Formats: sequence, C-alpha cells, structure tokens
Amino acid sequence: MEKMMDIENQRFVTNSYHCWLQYRKIENANQYSDIPSSIGVAGNTAIIDSAARELQYALKSMLDVDSTVQPYTSNESSIVLGTYESVNLNNYGISPKLFDDLNEEGYLLKTTEDNRQVLLIGKTDRGALYAAFHFLRILQQEESLLGLEIVEAPKNQLRMMNQWDNMNGSIERGYSGKSIFFNGNDFSKDVTRIKDYARLLSSVGVNAISINNVNVWDVETKLLTEEFLPKVKEVANILRSYGITTYLSINYASPIELGNLPTADPLDKEVGKWWARKAEEIYSYIPDFGGFVVKADSEGRPGPFTYGRGHVEGANVLARALQPFNGKVVWRCFVYNCLQDWRDRKTDRARAAYDNFKPLDGRFLDNVILQIKNGPMDFQVREPISPLVGAMKETNQVVEFQIAQEYTGQQKDVCYLVPQWKEVLDFDTYSDGEGSTVKSIVDGSRYNYSHSGIAAVSNIGNDINWTGNTLAQANLYGFGRLTWNPDLSTETITNEWIQFTFGSDPTVAGAVEDILLQSWRTYENYTAPLGVGWMVNPDHHYGPNVEGYEYSKWGTYHFADRDGIGVDRTIETGTGYAGQYFGSNAERYNSLEDCPDELLLFFHHVPYSHKLHSGVTVIQHIYNTHFQGVEEVETFIKSWNELEGKVENWVFENVKERLQLQLENAKEWRDRINTYFYRKSGIADEKNRTIY
Amino acid sequence: MEKMMDIENQRFVTNSYHCWLQYRKIENANQYSDIPSSIGVAGNTAIIDSAARELQYALKSMLDVDSTVQPYTSNESSIVLGTYESVNLNNYGISPKLFDDLNEEGYLLKTTEDNRQVLLIGKTDRGALYAAFHFLRILQQEESLLGLEIVEAPKNQLRMMNQWDNMNGSIERGYSGKSIFFNGNDFSKDVTRIKDYARLLSSVGVNAISINNVNVWDVETKLLTEEFLPKVKEVANILRSYGITTYLSINYASPIELGNLPTADPLDKEVGKWWARKAEEIYSYIPDFGGFVVKADSEGRPGPFTYGRGHVEGANVLARALQPFNGKVVWRCFVYNCLQDWRDRKTDRARAAYDNFKPLDGRFLDNVILQIKNGPMDFQVREPISPLVGAMKETNQVVEFQIAQEYTGQQKDVCYLVPQWKEVLDFDTYSDGEGSTVKSIVDGSRYNYSHSGIAAVSNIGNDINWTGNTLAQANLYGFGRLTWNPDLSTETITNEWIQFTFGSDPTVAGAVEDILLQSWRTYENYTAPLGVGWMVNPDHHYGPNVEGYEYSKWGTYHFADRDGIGVDRTIETGTGYAGQYFGSNAERYNSLEDCPDELLLFFHHVPYSHKLHSGVTVIQHIYNTHFQGVEEVETFIKSWNELEGKVENWVFENVKERLQLQLENAKEWRDRINTYFYRKSGIADEKNRTIY
Repeated sequence: MEKMMDIENQRFVTNSYHCWLQYRKIENANQYSDIPSSIGVAGNTAIIDSAARELQYALKSMLDVDSTVQPYTSNESSIVLGTYESVNLNNYGISPKLFDDLNEEGYLLKTTEDNRQVLLIGKTDRGALYAAFHFLRILQQEESLLGLEIVEAPKNQLRMMNQWDNMNGSIERGYSGKSIFFNGNDFSKDVTRIKDYARLLSSVGVNAISINNVNVWDVETKLLTEEFLPKVKEVANILRSYGITTYLSINYASPIELGNLPTADPLDKEVGKWWARKAEEIYSYIPDFGGFVVKADSEGRPGPFTYGRGHVEGANVLARALQPFNGKVVWRCFVYNCLQDWRDRKTDRARAAYDNFKPLDGRFLDNVILQIKNGPMDFQVREPISPLVGAMKETNQVVEFQIAQEYTGQQKDVCYLVPQWKEVLDFDTYSDGEGSTVKSIVDGSRYNYSHSGIAAVSNIGNDINWTGNTLAQANLYGFGRLTWNPDLSTETITNEWIQFTFGSDPTVAGAVEDILLQSWRTYENYTAPLGVGWMVNPDHHYGPNVEGYEYSKWGTYHFADRDGIGVDRTIETGTGYAGQYFGSNAERYNSLEDCPDELLLFFHHVPYSHKLHSGVTVIQHIYNTHFQGVEEVETFIKSWNELEGKVENWVFENVKERLQLQLENAKEWRDRINTYFYRKSGIADEKNRTIY
Repeated sequence: MEKMMDIENQRFVTNSYHCWLQYRKIENANQYSDIPSSIGVAGNTAIIDSAARELQYALKSMLDVDSTVQPYTSNESSIVLGTYESVNLNNYGISPKLFDDLNEEGYLLKTTEDNRQVLLIGKTDRGALYAAFHFLRILQQEESLLGLEIVEAPKNQLRMMNQWDNMNGSIERGYSGKSIFFNGNDFSKDVTRIKDYARLLSSVGVNAISINNVNVWDVETKLLTEEFLPKVKEVANILRSYGITTYLSINYASPIELGNLPTADPLDKEVGKWWARKAEEIYSYIPDFGGFVVKADSEGRPGPFTYGRGHVEGANVLARALQPFNGKVVWRCFVYNCLQDWRDRKTDRARAAYDNFKPLDGRFLDNVILQIKNGPMDFQVREPISPLVGAMKETNQVVEFQIAQEYTGQQKDVCYLVPQWKEVLDFDTYSDGEGSTVKSIVDGSRYNYSHSGIAAVSNIGNDINWTGNTLAQANLYGFGRLTWNPDLSTETITNEWIQFTFGSDPTVAGAVEDILLQSWRTYENYTAPLGVGWMVNPDHHYGPNVEGYEYSKWGTYHFADRDGIGVDRTIETGTGYAGQYFGSNAERYNSLEDCPDELLLFFHHVPYSHKLHSGVTVIQHIYNTHFQGVEEVETFIKSWNELEGKVENWVFENVKERLQLQLENAKEWRDRINTYFYRKSGIADEKNRTIY
C-alpha cells in the first residue's frame, strides 16, 4: 500500500502525475451501487496481484469502495479475476472454446446474467490484467456494466517502448527531464516511478520495453555484466508484474569490450561462443528476458560492417545465442551509408534502408525482427511511408514511431501524433495487392510473421507530469491504444484520453479535442513545407534553420534555388526512390500530376510557380500555411485560456506556458521561412502580409 | 639549470617547442671567435638573472661556449649586463644623459671601441633583459658585432597578452591543446611551460598578461581569494622574472559571490569598500599586480548594467580600489545591446562600441584603459577599423588583436596576421587631422594617454609546438615585435621569424615567406567575400555556413537575396555606421564609388552585377576569388612539400597535415559559397567552372 500512498501524496502537486490513471471520483455513482466490492483472485501470480491492487486502488478512488481481495470462489466474489483455466467457466455458462481462438493476451470481460458479478478472465494472467484495465476504462467513462460481454485480444504481438535513456541520467532526445531508470551511471534507487510507468504502459497494452538508449556508451555496455545484471533483474521484476518484458540495447563491440576478445566479428567462432555464454548468463538472472535491441553500423556505432560482414551475419550471431531462451533480436534499420556529399545528387538517403535490407529477405533467423522507422528519413513531421515496410515477406518486421517529439516541437509545441500514426498504419503498401496496409503487415497476418508489431521511442522523463507538456501524455496513451488495436479511430482514442485526464466537462473536452486534432497539421503548417523536411537547427532539432542541413553530410537537402525547390526522387530524372514502392504507389509518387501536395517536394523539384492541387502556387502555399500556422497557435491559446478554472491549475499553467513557447517558435518559423523564400524567389505574397 | 635540461630533452621530440628561441648552432662561427665568455652582471634582480641565464644558455647552444656569470667588473666582463645606474658608464664613454630620454624599458646595446666587450645596459633591469634578447637576435641572424651602438625602447607602454584559459584546463577559442596555466580546476603543477612561455613573450617584448579567460566562471571567480592567491603569486613570480606583469580577469559579481554582499552595484558603498579591501589583499601577495581585465555586460556576463549603472561607474569603482597600488582596469569594449532581431534592419551591432562609449569620454579615472577590438564586429578576416579608436581623446585606449585564429582558420589553416595588424596600425583615423594613425593613438603620443598600447588574445596551448600549426608561431612572434615597434615592416618581422625557426636555407626561407605573406589574402579569398563576414558555422566558427548567422540574434547579417547582397551602413539610407568615422574616412566608406572593394559589402548592399574597381562584377569576384583561394592553397602544399628533408621532419609533417586540412576546408568553402550564390543569383560563372 505504500505505493498508493506515494501516489496520493503526489496528487498534492498535480494530478497530471497520474496521467490517464487518475481514477477521478465519479460524482453520480448510482449505476454502480451494486459495485462489486469483493475481488476474487484465481491464480497467484505477480501479474494477477498487480491487477487486483489496481482494481482495489481504482475502486476506492472512483467510488470510495473499500474492496477486499480474496481467493476466488464461484459465487462470493463479485469481481472474478483470473485465467480461464483457473476459473470455473461452467458456472457462468462460458465455453472454454471461446479462449481457444484468443491469443495469449486476450480476455473475456463479462457481466453475469444477474449482473451481480463482473468476470475478468484472461487467456493468461496478462489477459486478466488487460481485462482489469479495460473494466476500469468502462468505469472511468461511466458506462453501464449491464449485460457486458466483451472478448478482446491485442492485434499486435510486440507492443514495445524504446527508452533512449543513458545511465548518467540524460535522455537522448528527451524533453521531459531526466531518466526515471538511471542516474549517476547507475540504476535509480527509487523505483516508484518505474512501477508507475509500468502501470501506465500496461494500462494501454504495452508489453515490452528496452530500458537503455540504442546508442550504447561505455557504462551502458556493462549492463550485460554481473555488475549490473542484478539491478536489471530488479527492474525486470517490476516490469514483469505488469506484463512487460525487458530488453536491453547492446553494444555490438561487447565481445571486445567485455570479453577481451580481439574482435567482434560475427563469424568468428569465439565471438559466437561469447554471445552464447552471455545469453546464458543473462537468462540466469531474467528467465523471460526479451532480447537485444541493436543499432549497428549507423551514425558511427560499431557493427558487423566494421568486420566486413553484413546485417544477416550481424543479427544472426545474436539470434543464435538467444534462441535457446526464446529471446529476440530487434535489429534497427536506421542504417545507411552514413556520410553523403551534398554535391552528389545521385545518392539518396531515403533509398538506403530499402537498398540495404530488401536483398536480405529470408536470410535472417526466425527470432530476428527488423525495426523500420515509419518514414525513410527520420521522424519528420511529414514523410512518405518507408517502402521497406511490406517489402520483405520472409523477414519479421516491426514499425517504429517516435513518441518523443524530436522534430515535432519537443513537447514545447503541441503535436498530437495519433493522426500521423493512423495514416501510417492505414497506408496501403500494395505489397501483396490491394489492402496490404501497414497494419496488416506489422500485425503479422499478411505474411505470417512469427514476430512483429509496433515499437516507439518514449517521450517520458522524470518531470512530474512525465511528458513535459501535459498534452503530450496523449501521444503516449494513443500509441499504446493503437498498438493494441490499430482499428481504433483517432476520435475514440482522443476522447478516452481527454475524459480520463480532464473529466467530462464538455467545454474542456471540446477545446482540448480541437487543439489535439488540429495540432499536427498546424505544426506542419508553420515548419518545413510540402514534405521537404529538415529545415531545422542542426543537432538539437528545435526551431527553424532553412539551410541548417542543406550542406550537411546527412543526405538531408531541399535544393532550393531562385527558381524552385524540392528533391527529384523520380525514376526518370531523379534518384529513383519513387520506384521502391509497389504498383500504383510508385506511379502516384513518381508522377508530378498525381503526387499528393503534402509530399510534393519530397518527390519532385518544382518551380515556385508550380500549381498545387489545392489551386495555389508552391510559393503562395508556403506563405499561406506559415501565416495560417501562427494564427492556429493563437487560436489554441485563446481556446486554452478559456479553460482557466476548468482544469487543474498546475496543468492549466503548464500548457499555457508551453503554448506561449509554441507561439514564439511558430512566429520564428513563419518569419524565417517566408523571408528565406521571398529573398530567394522574389515573388511577393499575394495578400501583402509582412515578410521581412 | 634543470629548466635547460628539460628543454634539451624536449628537443628530441621537436625543436619547434623552442619556437624562435631555438638558438640553432652557428656553423661558421669565426666572426664570433672573440665571443665574450664572461658575463658580468651588474645588479642582482630576478630579471637580470633571467637575462644572464638566457645568454649563457644561448651561447652554449649557438657557439658551444661555456660562459661564466660573475659580478660585473669594468674590464674583465666581456658581456656587461645591467642597468645604467649600476654600470660605470664613464668607462665606456657613455653619457648618462642618453638614458634620460629613454623610457623605463629602453636600453643601449653597444660594442666597445676595441670590440672586446658587449654592453647590454638597460634603463632598468627590464631594459637589460630586452637588450640581451636583442643581442641574441643579432647572433641568431649571424650579423657582425663590430661597432654596434643601438639605442632602443618600446613604442607602446602596454604590450599585453590575454589568455582565455579556464581553470578546468580548457581554452575558450583555443586551438593548440589545453591550458599551460591550469588544469583540473587548479593551477598546473608543472610550471616549466609557464616559464618557457614567459621567455618567449619576453623575448619579443610582451610585458603584461592576464592569465584567465575574460569569461570568468565559478572557479575562476575564486582566483581573487586566499584559496588561489598564493598560487597566482607563484605564477606572477615566474612572469615577473621576465619583466611580465600579471593581471586577472574578474567576475563583476565578485562582491556577491565572494563577499556575500546583496549586490555588486558599483555605486553601493559596501561594494566599493569590498573592492578596496580585495585590492589590498591581492597586493599583499603580489606587490606589482597589474590589475583587472573586465568583460562586463556582454554576452550575458554580469556588469554594472545589471544594476542600472553605466560603464563609467562600473570601471571607476574598480579603478579607485586599484589606484593606491598603481593597478589598472582594462575594460573591454566588446559590449553591445547583445540581442538583436534579424527582422530589424535599423539596429547595427557595428555601431555599438562607438555609440556606447564615445559619450563617456573624459569620465573614466586615469587608471582605466578601454580595450577596443580592432574591428567593430569580432575579428573577422576583413573588417574596417573600429571607429572608436581615436574617438576618445581623454580616455586611455588599448587596441585588441586576436592571435588565436578563431575566425581565420583555427590554426588548421595558415593565416599570417601581421599584414592585417600592420594595416590596422597604419590606418589613418583622421581623428586629429591627417596622420592620426592607429599606432600614433595607441602608443599614447597622439593624445598623451597615460596608459595605452596593444593587447591580444593568445594562440598558445600545451601542444608541443605551442600553436598547433607551427606556422602560427609566426603570429605570436609578429604580434610581440609589432607591439614593441609598430614601424617594423612585415618583411623584417617575417624574415626574422623564419630565420630563427628554420635557419637560413634560402629555399626554405623563400617558400615559407611566400606562404606566410600570401596566407591572409588566401584565407579571405576562399571565405566570406568583400568584407561581409560571418558566413561561418555558429558556435565553433570553423568552416562555411552562409546562413549560419543570417537569422541569429547577434547582429551578423549579409541580407543576400536573389538580386544582391551586403549591409547598407551608409548615412543616407542605411544604419549610419559610416558616419562614425572622421572626415574623409566617413566620406570614402559612405560612397558607393569610393568604398574600397574589400569592404564594399560591409558598407553597401549592391546587386550581384555591381562592378568593382577591379573591373569584375560582385558575383564574378565571388566565383573568381573562391576558385583562386583553393588554387593558392594547392600552391602552398606544392611549395611546402618541396621542403621535405630541408626542415625538421616533425615540423614538416605537422604543417603538411594542416595544409591538407586547409585544402579540404578551402574546397568546402569554395563549393558552398559558390553554390549558394549561384543558386541565389542564377548568374553563371563566366569561366564555366564547376559549381554544384
């Protein structure tokens, strides 16, 4: 119960600590007057225990009910919590067959016919935990419990969070304070926040996490050693009790740095043996260890290429070591011939992932999963979908999102990414004919992948509200819900989050919903136009810098001159990138006429006078959207300010302050972008607005 | 003698450790067969002792003579070293009146009529030291000693070096390793290099040094406390023995941070008292302490403006504290309304120093010296001379150079700055009619300043050769020689340095001279054109970035658009900066017709098609100079490579490697600048060379 008390105490600072698990008091609780107050627990696992405690805590919080937790008996338990094998299904007229079709994490959530019992029955204990959270969502939405009969299971097998946390406490691309896992080159002593993070993740269905940065430095390399494995084990224990499997990001040079071998060549016999022994050691601490996340041969990280080997050899040596323990290798495809020369217009970073990996299809071991960023570049506000998704029919794939708003406002600016992710998931790759959507690929159904799913870079830190901007909590929530069920609509997810966070005042809900749903488009409006990307300040990636990456070594160019702008990625005259897509996608992107406006400059170099489908010229579109973007932020501020007194004051001030920063940022973007293109094109704004 | 041994040992690595004090063996030493081998010392000061040891060491090194050092007797001493009051002048037929006209640091260097004695007689012991170094220069040049009679004195009173060394060992804008003064937030334990640095500085006449960075951080603030003053004293003792006075850069907020006062307001009584007591404390350790160097109210450093006071009040409170001890306040004029908005074309950073300080003329106490950067911006490769120089007739002035090549190649690229400094010193300000050259102002003669001179940011660190690129030693040498005598020609200084560093092989001398004398213009050729400046990467300031500072808050713009480029600083239509100059300078700069090509874009915004006096258009000039700059670097490489085997191998490789870096840098500059302006102007290169 200490944990609960901690949470209670933190409420005095701000409820936003609890995110969507505030379990706000239900004012009119009549419909729940029969509310079950005896929780009957079938099964004795840490996960079932977590579920029971969560129920107990939430019922007290929402309904002021002091519930008891007891071993399950068919009739006395008013909430039945357990696995289908430990509950007497016959009693409730449930056929065990129902569970045969469910995957391991599925569940039945059912009210008995007399409406006096709620059954939360999982295929496994994890299913039961998810059922409990589902039940609590129903209560939080104040929906009726009468006649419920819900059968649910997650669509995606792997629903993974990637922490980019370093052991010195910093977070690469972290915008919400320091790491909750590490500080001072060690694990954090206080695990309260790890446990609460596990609750948050579990409540939205996340079932895997890699706890350290994909860039693995000196200290982090030692996470695989006896110095730190006991502590990894402690954290894994906490996470496991919420159904979350622990992974580690590894240093590919570990055999050298930890094993004193002369090489980390994946084909070297001793290296293979070293990894096998290392896996054995890790599993002796953590029997259900998830496996390794690897960023190799990218941005200067060591990898198999250091030894003249390829990705297949590189990943498979690790996979062989993990195979006996059912461990997995998550191999990131953020890999390209790092250094480009801006003078060279033939080489194209966008092509790299496909060019590098597509030829390797079918050669990876079955416990290797390729993790592919949603776009071919790097989490820009607007990119096409990576053509590698769906292109490898015999290779497990996971798509990677970035919840951390590296290029999308860094949790100063509001940018709700669920609409973006929905677009990605619903995108038809045509890789297996019409209907080959990204979601049908990553849920494993299209190509019968043995492992697949969705991963994302986390946006949390030790800020009291976890995400810097409180509204950024919606991205974490939405990511989890989408990975559980990519068919959920943006509106459903958004409204759930708003209700759990702000309650059901329609004024508040309406204003927050409007801001969230508009915010991605707004961010796009005032930043880099028409899919061209990269007009940001180098390194930290916040704020405008039109030529910030124009002459860089990173393959990130827009080629703006006095006449036009954009990257020719067509098959005929450009880099040929458009040809990496299947069928009509290739045709559409390759065609100047058919290419969607929003990606025009990603695929084509056009004159400023080029007319968009929208009817305006490219240059006028740039001016219009940039003025509009700022106006939209001003509207956000106006709407938000009207919520004073209607939302908790701490949250009100937090978002208000961030919106002010966003306005300054948006104005700087507007003025710099407009000035840059006016200076370059010499074409005046039709509406004669101020351009400097 | 240990010191000498240390130096001997380091010779095994590279002679370049010794810079211009290598004292190379004189092969044909016949003319020196009578060389004095008995050094008679008149006076017993640390400085005289330093001079004697230097002579002894150098004679051994150059002529293999084991000389003795003994108290002076009129006839037996073959080298007479002392002050004019301690030597029997009558014996040599010298009138004491000769010394009446000399300043404190002057000397007589004379061979007796029988040519059997060399007299090195200073007005003070410092003069004697300088005479010794002069004598050694003559030997190094293998010139005759017969009938010598040289009377010399430094033209400038203050000849100062500013170290930008931090106590953690880093050097702000350091390109030659770490600090020789500090490391690990303390003083260096090994003072060998401090002593050798003192020898180098003293040998070229530098007589003052501030040992810590003008940006004074937490630890450095404590240099004024009993924790560090004993160590400052130790260093000051070493420096003093070479005639060099020690200064400290101070934190203006010291009364708060060290004194626990609630304010550092210069008009607050307690603050004044605190500084007075602090001065007393410092002088109890170092009786000849030089004073304070202050960078206040600039780039976010605290200063009097923090308290609503001005520079006068700010400097005078310190001056009053130092006055009883003859200490000085060196008040840097790198001060401007820091933050500008790129949208605002009226505000002009170039105006700031003049606008801020000119109205304050006559209000500073007599021991305050304003230190003015040579140009109005910040040590760009090409700037006009600061209009503040000469504009304050009743305020002591020091002009500041930057030997550290922050914006001029960072000691990767060769950029010999003596020609630039000569241009500055010879510049006629017209402040007191024709002939009011900068040198006549800073030497104090024009306006009878009680204190004035030249200061510079040092370019040394603990690299074995002190300056990273061995050729950059020439800048340190040249700076010292110029501060001693601004009338020395570039050629004289350059040839001295070459001979002392490389010996007298005419092939080597010719090649090195050509490289050095061309290098500044070459650097200008391939970087920012026609005086516009600032096209560098922000923060570290190496390499091209045409828009790197274009939208910054630092007032550093070029306003390039599709039609033209440059900053309108004219009186009629621009910022009016040109009007800060006196008489014909103002007219010349203000006039589009008369403005020198090399500063055209500093003063005027012109179309790319504008014809220069040289006959080519601005755009063609940009293309031409950028291609030419790279070709010149290629010529440097060719010339240098021919010196293999003719110069010490370590030095050969050192410069060779740097020249390669310079070539890469020059090419990147060429291509980026040319591409940028071609994209913007659309005007093709007349000669059809490759632009990307």
